[in-house]
Parts: sequence; C-alpha cells; structure tokens
Amino acid sequence: MSRRLVLASASPARLRLLQQAGFDVEVMASGVDEDGVDTTDTRVAVTALAEMKADAIATRVTDALVIGCDSLLDLDDRAIGKPRSPAEAAAICRAQRGRTGTLMTGQCVIDTVTGKRVSAVGETLVRFGHLSDAEIDAYVATGEPLEVAGSFTLDGFSAPFIEGIDGDPSNVIGLSLPLLRRQLAQLDIRITDLWR
Amino acid sequence: MSRRLVLASASPARLRLLQQAGFDVEVMASGVDEDGVDTTDTRVAVTALAEMKADAIATRVTDALVIGCDSLLDLDDRAIGKPRSPAEAAAICRAQRGRTGTLMTGQCVIDTVTGKRVSAVGETLVRFGHLSDAEIDAYVATGEPLEVAGSFTLDGFSAPFIEGIDGDPSNVIGLSLPLLRRQLAQLDIRITDLWR
Repeated sequence: MSRRLVLASASPARLRLLQQAGFDVEVMASGVDEDGVDTTDTRVAVTALAEMKADAIATRVTDALVIGCDSLLDLDDRAIGKPRSPAEAAAICRAQRGRTGTLMTGQCVIDTVTGKRVSAVGETLVRFGHLSDAEIDAYVATGEPLEVAGSFTLDGFSAPFIEGIDGDPSNVIGLSLPLLRRQLAQLDIRITDLWR
Repeated sequence: MSRRLVLASASPARLRLLQQAGFDVEVMASGVDEDGVDTTDTRVAVTALAEMKADAIATRVTDALVIGCDSLLDLDDRAIGKPRSPAEAAAICRAQRGRTGTLMTGQCVIDTVTGKRVSAVGETLVRFGHLSDAEIDAYVATGEPLEVAGSFTLDGFSAPFIEGIDGDPSNVIGLSLPLLRRQLAQLDIRITDLWR
C-alpha cells in the first residue's frame, strides 16, 4: 500500500536524500520561524522545531505521512545553525577544525490518517579535518557554508574536510533514513511499501 | 591552477561523489578484469585493482590526475563484491543483517605530469540493521544490490537499512574524498584548486 509522503521542509538536501532512497515526495515548506526558538539545549531545540514544522503541514494535508526535520551542530554544548555572514562562517570553520561535534537532527513523523505522531533526535559524531586558513577562505568563497547548519555538509564542497563520522550519514545531511524506518515501524508502516 | 581530473571507473556513484564535491571530471573506464584478482586478502585486492585501473588510464592521457578505485566489503575476513544473482544478493543480505562489516576502498592517484603516484586503502565500519526476510526480498526485487559491492549502498534503496557507520561515508560509496584530499597534498596539489 503506497502512501502520500510530504516533506515539511524546503531543504533540497533532504528532498534528494528521500528521492535517492526511492521515495516519491511532495515538498511543503512550513514557514516556521527558526530564529524564534530557544537553542540553549540543542536536543530540545531541534525536537521543538521538527515538531512545529510537521504540525504546521499536518493541518493542511489529508491522507499523508508528514515528515518534519531540523538540524543543528552541537559543539561544546553550543548549538550552531546556519552562519549569518561569510565572516561568521569562517569563524565557525576555524573553531571546528581538528575537533569533533555532534550533528543533531530532530525528526517528527505524523500520520494524518490515524493522528499518530512519533518524534526523536538522531545524533551523529562528526570529526572535522585540520583545515588550513587558505582552505577555509576558499570554502567560504564558494558560498556553500551559508546554506548549511554548522557551516559544513557531507554532500558538497566540504565533504573532503570531514575526516569521518560515527553514526548515520543521512542524519548529518538533515534527515535520518534509518531513524525514519524505525519511526514508520512505530506507525505500523513498512518503509519498503513506500518505494516508488 | 586547475588540473584535468580523470576517473578510471565507470561507476556512476563515484562520478556523482566527485561532482557533488565541486569537481569537473572526465570518466574513462579502465576495462580491468576484476574477476582475475585474488581476493584472499581484501586490502591487497582493492589496492591491486585500484592501481591496475589507474595505471591502465594513466598510459592513455596526458597532463592529468588519474584516480583509480576499487571497493569490497570485508565480513569475517572474507571479501564480498557484487553479487552474481538475486539469490546470492539475498544470501549476502541475510548474512550481514545485525552485524558489522568493513567497507574497504583502494584508491590510487597518479599525476601524469610528474609521474608520481600515491596509493592507500580507506576503511569504514558499516553497521547493518536487522532486516526482516520481507525487507530483504523487497530490496532484492529492486535490482539495486546486484550493482553494488556487498549488496548494499548508502545512496540508494538500502540507505535506511544501514544503522550507522564509523569512518568516512564517501569511502563507503566508493571514493574517499578526505583520503583524496590527503593524497593530493602528497602530490603537492591543493584540493581547493580543483574546484570548478
């Protein structure tokens, strides 16, 4: 039995993850204001934002599975989102090089048929390489870090700068596919039934 | 200074990795016969194949950086390549579920200008989820496992079945980008100079 799948996020990286994994997905951006959320606790913040996004879309669709996600990088118990300027992007890259952070993705799935809802946080350790100042300058000049939480991504120019991860790679890109499989199982849905 | 980059592999996943990371790449399949290589030792096998592929292309191009790669999954000291039939794919999936293997990618880079050559093996732990028999049957029916070493991939239908990894995710897809950065540094080339 196939189901309508709705991604409550405008992120092209999340959409690509779902498409590469064989799902047909509709995109509906939630318009949730991310700046309004308290980020004192990174886990609490990504959970709240994921749920707000999923809730906002779930009220507007029927017969759908709605997925809301939000990602932040936690470094030294500080939540790092998208940098607001090239200078801030460079500062984040310098603070991260040679160190390990935790990419946290809040993920909320709502079945609008049953009204059931599941929510969890995926956590993946990210080991940053030892970037030179010249590499940081070149990376910031690409413009990419301004578009991604923590000023890096696994599926772009910065991939060679991430020495390794411990955990799920899709979680780092913004939507954890193994977590989605477990969440769907909680909703009595087999992920293989959603393949196109 | 930009350089001509040649991928000695017909793998669309490796090409996509390089393109997503910002490189313009030419593809030249090497025609190396992978079945002729002794796979008693997985590390030795992927190294030999990566070097054979890079060597085969390096003799045919000028002014280029040639990248040769080969990937095998090591499970219990046994090398697992692409399955030869749906039945073998299913047997591999059943043997792997709930367990941890090591994806090994041999990677050889040759600078045809200087004649210098560097070669290394990237290793990433892969933790397989507990798949049901129904999930394995559905996955084999997609045809995907027949195209990939170890009967799984991170960038396709099987992504939700990989609970996590420890190491570099691009290495699992077939070409380690952080290893490439270090190999280029050994050849006195900055990876940021190769961005388009």
